[in-house]
Amino acid sequence: MSDVLEMAKNAREAAINALQLSDDLKKNALSNIAISLEENKTKIIEANKIDLDLAKKLLFDEKITQSAFNRLKLDENKMRDMIQGIRDIINLDSPVNKVLWSKQIAVGITLKKITCPIGVIGVIFEARPDVISQITALSIKSSNAVILKGGSEAKNTNNQIFNIIVSALKNIKDFPSNMVNIINSRDDVNEMLKADEFINLIIPRGSNSLVKYIKSNTKIPVLGHSDGICHIYIDEYADIEKTIKVCMDSKCQYPAACNSVETILIHEKILPNIINRLFSEFTKNQVKIIADDNIIKYIPSAIKASEDDWKTEYSDKIISLKTVKTINDAITHINKYGSGHTDCIMTENNENVEKFMMFVDSAGVYNNISTRFADGYRYGFGAEVGISTNKTHARGPVGLEGLTIYKYRLYGQGDIVDDFINGSREFIK
Amino acid sequence: MSDVLEMAKNAREAAINALQLSDDLKKNALSNIAISLEENKTKIIEANKIDLDLAKKLLFDEKITQSAFNRLKLDENKMRDMIQGIRDIINLDSPVNKVLWSKQIAVGITLKKITCPIGVIGVIFEARPDVISQITALSIKSSNAVILKGGSEAKNTNNQIFNIIVSALKNIKDFPSNMVNIINSRDDVNEMLKADEFINLIIPRGSNSLVKYIKSNTKIPVLGHSDGICHIYIDEYADIEKTIKVCMDSKCQYPAACNSVETILIHEKILPNIINRLFSEFTKNQVKIIADDNIIKYIPSAIKASEDDWKTEYSDKIISLKTVKTINDAITHINKYGSGHTDCIMTENNENVEKFMMFVDSAGVYNNISTRFADGYRYGFGAEVGISTNKTHARGPVGLEGLTIYKYRLYGQGDIVDDFINGSREFIK
Repeated sequence: MSDVLEMAKNAREAAINALQLSDDLKKNALSNIAISLEENKTKIIEANKIDLDLAKKLLFDEKITQSAFNRLKLDENKMRDMIQGIRDIINLDSPVNKVLWSKQIAVGITLKKITCPIGVIGVIFEARPDVISQITALSIKSSNAVILKGGSEAKNTNNQIFNIIVSALKNIKDFPSNMVNIINSRDDVNEMLKADEFINLIIPRGSNSLVKYIKSNTKIPVLGHSDGICHIYIDEYADIEKTIKVCMDSKCQYPAACNSVETILIHEKILPNIINRLFSEFTKNQVKIIADDNIIKYIPSAIKASEDDWKTEYSDKIISLKTVKTINDAITHINKYGSGHTDCIMTENNENVEKFMMFVDSAGVYNNISTRFADGYRYGFGAEVGISTNKTHARGPVGLEGLTIYKYRLYGQGDIVDDFINGSREFIK
Repeated sequence: MSDVLEMAKNAREAAINALQLSDDLKKNALSNIAISLEENKTKIIEANKIDLDLAKKLLFDEKITQSAFNRLKLDENKMRDMIQGIRDIINLDSPVNKVLWSKQIAVGITLKKITCPIGVIGVIFEARPDVISQITALSIKSSNAVILKGGSEAKNTNNQIFNIIVSALKNIKDFPSNMVNIINSRDDVNEMLKADEFINLIIPRGSNSLVKYIKSNTKIPVLGHSDGICHIYIDEYADIEKTIKVCMDSKCQYPAACNSVETILIHEKILPNIINRLFSEFTKNQVKIIADDNIIKYIPSAIKASEDDWKTEYSDKIISLKTVKTINDAITHINKYGSGHTDCIMTENNENVEKFMMFVDSAGVYNNISTRFADGYRYGFGAEVGISTNKTHARGPVGLEGLTIYKYRLYGQGDIVDDFINGSREFIK
């Protein structure tokens, strides 16, 4: 048995023991983690300096981007937010052992549907050291065991934070050791993907190619989003001022985010009234414009769009613009080229809102609001483990609830099915 | 593009159109199917005769079992139940377009979580022709497009039923064609498994090896149960009479079912008081007994159990018996060797009930009731598409709800994230 398989096996055992953890005990554990991280700030910053020094060379060689480098850096502010993030999770409602419903299925037979943890979760995340404590906290709060794999550029910081977390948990009586685990190499990830006997869910946060690779190489269910190709459709009944505001926020507020807009579809009737405003605002914000022929007539400086542009997540200050003749054309375009993440209609026409929201097959369907709202915190979930474009289990921003499943408890008094087959007893309808 | 890929692509289009189907229209469609099947009974019985004639040869060559042959046979009673099954589904609550919750996340911004269909579902099922109409009805009721693949021994019957269904649906105005599809060969299944761009969920009903094969050969999420290794644990505080009744029903009422018991764990303190009763009742029911050394002392005719027996789903009149020293040993055994399907504790001690139900990591945890109750109809779901031992999406008997997911609708008034980042606006806590 490989080391990782052994780790997964032990994590599975810890997950079984964790089924009994009270919310109070988990609160204590999380509070201990927050205190320990605070006390060991200097150690973490030092480990982070090692990662940053190594990353500087990668930056110089253009192997990582400046924004990736920035995400890697842990300063006082990020540390404070990171520790506050754990404290926020402490006070969320416990997602497990909740009775979803209870009913009598026959006289004397009661069926209850009760939430419970999933078991063992493997999370692969980007080189952002503030993420490790958040995912750990969400896992503990939901009584799941976790195997963590962070981006390799943050290896030293992650391992330091991990060690502090594990030490903090050792001081909690009855807390199952092996609840929180870390792996470091790609080989380890490949071993983890084989451990379908022990691991119940893999959550990859990261690039499209990473998610695709993982889905192709494991029998374990995978929760994640491959692309974030979000759209705004400007309907013929859109309010121009709202639209300009929402388009700028959706593209410029944080262009690297998966919930940033990539393509704007514009109804041909409103096009002449809005295109110059869009052009000047995007230009002011240094956004490069790619557009279809129709729009290039208004913006000769725009780059001509190719078929590939409609399928591209730029994750940058680039926007593609396309004219559509009808709302139906917009919906068809989104369902064809979109990634089912988040799509918005700008309109004051309620019928069109309804139509768009019904037929656009995405996790988030929006009206008159920035696509950047697609986020667990903003939805009020307290925190998120990621955003899912899956059509099963959990969709959209995934908070604590997405880390749970349920079991059925059935209470009888010596009841047998044969009585119901031979007609001597009946189920309650 | 292969035929199956083309079919999947068209099914995806139909699924998008189906998003708007009203429950009334779906009721009409299902009612039309029921009427058509009734009117065409003779055709179906004739097609079934062809399958039965071919199957007789397989039976003679011992390539299929007598019970498989029986399941293949459609008589008047089964036809009546099959048609009634569709009528039962008509009247179930619509599982889609339900508002799960709605809340203001900030002044003027409303978030709604609303149920919707999954999209395109591929269902692979055993050679039981009464299943095809049930799965079709569940799919239509939940607005999902479906690709059906039945057991090859039922090919003629299935295709006849499928043709009748498709004709019945053609008479329904606005019903998307391509909602219901059928494939017939193993090659087709392999093509289907590649269509992850269009198919959202695969539900294999059938053998352990089939489910494993499918999980290893597709990126599409798979919902199903591989094994049905169910346990009864007879606690030291069990009531003997109830226990005998429940054990016999769990093993003998339908031994081929996945929710039949395979292993009975007996607390050593109660063993001397119950083992002779168990032996005589099982013997009376022609059940072969496999047991550990301790039990063989009481039942010298029992076959000595090997490690493999604890991992075996007999699906037959065979039972394995094992002594345990404590309830903890029973729980550990079940979590190690079980398949997470359905497990029962026979006891009058409430603390032990609670402990068992908390720590046994199975879809169904039972007290004093036959494992045979693990079934969508018996749980009151109206019908089931299968039983899941997954730890994500849906667990236990899966009814209409398991064929749905949700989307988030967000209604704003031109709102932007930047206002919340710069502190000029706040989310409602």
